Amino acid sequence: MERIPEGDNRARLVCPDCGYIAYTNPKIVVGAVCWWETAILLCKRAIAPSLGLWTIPAGFMELGETTSEGAAREVWEEAQARVVIEDLVGIYEIPHINQVHIIYRAPMTSAEFAPGLESEAVDLFAWEDIPWDQLAFPSIRWSLERFRAGGGPHVHAATPKPLARSAVR
Amino acid sequence: MERIPEGDNRARLVCPDCGYIAYTNPKIVVGAVCWWETAILLCKRAIAPSLGLWTIPAGFMELGETTSEGAAREVWEEAQARVVIEDLVGIYEIPHINQVHIIYRAPMTSAEFAPGLESEAVDLFAWEDIPWDQLAFPSIRWSLERFRAGGGPHVHAATPKPLARSAVR
Repeated sequence: MERIPEGDNRARLVCPDCGYIAYTNPKIVVGAVCWWETAILLCKRAIAPSLGLWTIPAGFMELGETTSEGAAREVWEEAQARVVIEDLVGIYEIPHINQVHIIYRAPMTSAEFAPGLESEAVDLFAWEDIPWDQLAFPSIRWSLERFRAGGGPHVHAATPKPLARSAVR
Repeated sequence: MERIPEGDNRARLVCPDCGYIAYTNPKIVVGAVCWWETAILLCKRAIAPSLGLWTIPAGFMELGETTSEGAAREVWEEAQARVVIEDLVGIYEIPHINQVHIIYRAPMTSAEFAPGLESEAVDLFAWEDIPWDQLAFPSIRWSLERFRAGGGPHVHAATPKPLARSAVR
């Protein structure tokens, strides 16, 4: 049942029998802008959403790992590449879908890569050859541009697209 | 039932009837090192764990808010103080309890404060008067020291205390 637990200030899902409170909180996405020499590693998505569009390796952080470990794991799973996780590019927040993306800079330790299960292709792109009009999400352009700009890390909160906003009303 | 969903690589709680997958992921704690003039705002905890020990305002990030909004909310709830959330102090990770703490610098906009529901006292401390031996968690000392050091933001992963580790084995 939805109710406000004692000492709390918002409704939670509470079991009326045992009092168990099921908290729901934002999720962390970990990812990395990876590069070899002067080229950026991108993956063509083999899964929805944004099937067929290009992304940096990124995905939901798992239990028991650090954000760096998670980012390296995602790079391996999606692009079969080995990297060194260095400093933060930034934090990209999407409050309307309850996600916080933590993005690192990560030089590759070799030029080897291959599509993982969730990618239909992986490739290295010179900056000017990045498929800017075929990027999977606004967070990808942001990550690439903040990586290129250097400095930071940057913290950015995305706002809903007008279309997405009207669709849920 | 616990099983590995198709296309996944680790066991999840899956409903055998409808296929619903209950993902469990690390949670975000948002907080802030707040100050007025040269003094730091600390709260004496009125709740477990670490009841009676001192903390910076911090707590679990809620749905629908940004990390900055969450940090400002926690400052208000625990210390009844208004702040401006500025840049990141850093990210303090505790992988063995699946928490990622995102800590900001936050100047107070007035000298007003008061204990919220979860605090038995709130006070401003000159740096040398901070109760270093009565801090609630290792993350608090880390946050204060990284705040003082400046630069950054810093990313740090905590390791389990030997005692805590042996207790769960």
